[in-house]
Amino acid sequence: IHSIDWSADMAEKGGYDHFMLKEIHEEPSAVRDTLTEWDEVLGVVEEIGEVERICFVACGTSYHASLVGKYLFEGLLGIPTDVILASEFRYSAGALNDRTLAIFISQSGETADTLNALRAANSRAKTLAIVNVLGSSATREAQHVLYTRAGPEIGVAATKTYVSQLTVIYMLVAAMGAPELMDRLGRVPEFMERALKDEDGIRELAATCSDVSDFFFIGRGFAYPTALEGALKLKEITYIHGEGYAAGELKHGPLALIDNGVPVVAISPPGPCHDKTLSNVEEVRARGARVIGVGSISDESLRKEADDFIGLDPEVDDVISPLVYIVPLQLLSYHVSVERGLDPDKPKNLAKCVTVE
Amino acid sequence: IHSIDWSADMAEKGGYDHFMLKEIHEEPSAVRDTLTEWDEVLGVVEEIGEVERICFVACGTSYHASLVGKYLFEGLLGIPTDVILASEFRYSAGALNDRTLAIFISQSGETADTLNALRAANSRAKTLAIVNVLGSSATREAQHVLYTRAGPEIGVAATKTYVSQLTVIYMLVAAMGAPELMDRLGRVPEFMERALKDEDGIRELAATCSDVSDFFFIGRGFAYPTALEGALKLKEITYIHGEGYAAGELKHGPLALIDNGVPVVAISPPGPCHDKTLSNVEEVRARGARVIGVGSISDESLRKEADDFIGLDPEVDDVISPLVYIVPLQLLSYHVSVERGLDPDKPKNLAKCVTVE
Repeated sequence: IHSIDWSADMAEKGGYDHFMLKEIHEEPSAVRDTLTEWDEVLGVVEEIGEVERICFVACGTSYHASLVGKYLFEGLLGIPTDVILASEFRYSAGALNDRTLAIFISQSGETADTLNALRAANSRAKTLAIVNVLGSSATREAQHVLYTRAGPEIGVAATKTYVSQLTVIYMLVAAMGAPELMDRLGRVPEFMERALKDEDGIRELAATCSDVSDFFFIGRGFAYPTALEGALKLKEITYIHGEGYAAGELKHGPLALIDNGVPVVAISPPGPCHDKTLSNVEEVRARGARVIGVGSISDESLRKEADDFIGLDPEVDDVISPLVYIVPLQLLSYHVSVERGLDPDKPKNLAKCVTVE
Repeated sequence: IHSIDWSADMAEKGGYDHFMLKEIHEEPSAVRDTLTEWDEVLGVVEEIGEVERICFVACGTSYHASLVGKYLFEGLLGIPTDVILASEFRYSAGALNDRTLAIFISQSGETADTLNALRAANSRAKTLAIVNVLGSSATREAQHVLYTRAGPEIGVAATKTYVSQLTVIYMLVAAMGAPELMDRLGRVPEFMERALKDEDGIRELAATCSDVSDFFFIGRGFAYPTALEGALKLKEITYIHGEGYAAGELKHGPLALIDNGVPVVAISPPGPCHDKTLSNVEEVRARGARVIGVGSISDESLRKEADDFIGLDPEVDDVISPLVYIVPLQLLSYHVSVERGLDPDKPKNLAKCVTVE
């Protein structure tokens, strides 16, 4: 029997002002706990057998975790990988067959769109659900199940469940042919802890950009899903119109919106995309943007181009960056929300678990 | 020898205030002219031979044309189809092989990101370029080439080249196994002409929403790429922060931004997604949004939910809708731009052809 213990005090704020802040601070342990699922991951990979193509299906934050999966499966294993919004699955069916692994990601395991897509896929493909809530509908309906061990998440904006979903995806890729990832994954909690220590600096930064109406997030490669997720967090809890872009795509349209003082968060971990992202940073800076650089603490070139700089451990390279670089972005959205006098735990119009289509 | 005649007066405004407006009005003939490429399409499909997977590579507006291609190839032919931003191609290589057809779309045929991706793909996959400018670099480097017959496009925001790109994609799908599309394609110019007759109504609508700071576009299935392209046009030439969403994805975050009076353009052609989109319209309406419905002129249910309504020919169903429903959205952006005192032909920060990475 697979059991996960959720104690009562895990559902209290434990000294933090909001559940969201507590849950961001729980990310290192959420990753550590999820890493204990390694044997389950190995077992599922063996059961699933040969896979020619992968098709992720998810919504919202889980969709961004899936996008990271695409970069991992294609970049590290050469397996063609598609990522489909669950609400679009019935119209863009991804041409499934019995050599396709369809992976459904949902914190609650009850997301209506994701469940409907899972039911439609079950007879046509191998199906795997990655879920946080034990015994939820997705766990009963999927052919295979893996759990994120994030514990209960009360804040409506997903934080620790996002990094836990990523952890399972990285473990899957490791188990399917990139075992060298596991050592780096093991160090992620310590990288996150270091990022969390800089919270004061991020609170100060938040105070200086809480009254803007637009916000951009840019990144290339593995930093692109991080840009999308950073923008979604901002939208959800601050109601500022944040938008994430592939850094190279700016010049094909969105650059028209970049004006004096518009904050642009440039996510640029060490790796092959670094220099190209830097030239995109120069472009937006030339148009008057206020650049908030997020990079290695020893990245002098990015620091020089940036008006504000968030430094992370230099050992975090681009491949592993989605797990670590999201931490300061979550904190930034949280503090902007508080600064604007909002309740980050309960954004208007949004529900924690979307059980309607 | 393949020759396309571009006469000198085609490059003048011909009585229109701006090139962009002239080019929107040229869309019916751009589609008609592009349809004359049918024999070339048949020839290329025969040369290419068997295809197991398709991978579109493009930027900006061409990326949105590619997304329509994904819905067509997967929905009508069951061929798994990926769509990759050209600037992300090197990081998300799409796992190409000799049974993959990689399709590169570029108006100019000189887009740096797209050319680089084409060069990287040439040795690993079958490559096809869809290009407007004869003799451009992409036409020399791709294994196969198809032309859009849109004529020269001067406005920086792509309009008639978008519908011409779509026309080539529809013809490709028709030639690869869905010949029934051709009859419906043949009627598209007349549907467009009818849409263009409603320009006065759209001008009046534009006058009432030119001072907003945010604008949303939603659609499901074939209407989703139309939502994205409608939002991009608005961004490019009005500097209003327009964003396109899959209608079912709103409740996973962006709904937090919907407030009293925020315009939401709901694109809902007749077809299997219609009723689900309508329930998303009810959601945003309940949050105070100003709904601009775009649907069949005989769609009383959408008209009833909408504050403003743009009616199109009832014979345009969802599959063919990307070619027709974009027309009023282009006109809307154009007139909002003029209303704001801007020059729609020359948006700030943007170049017609992006020859840097």
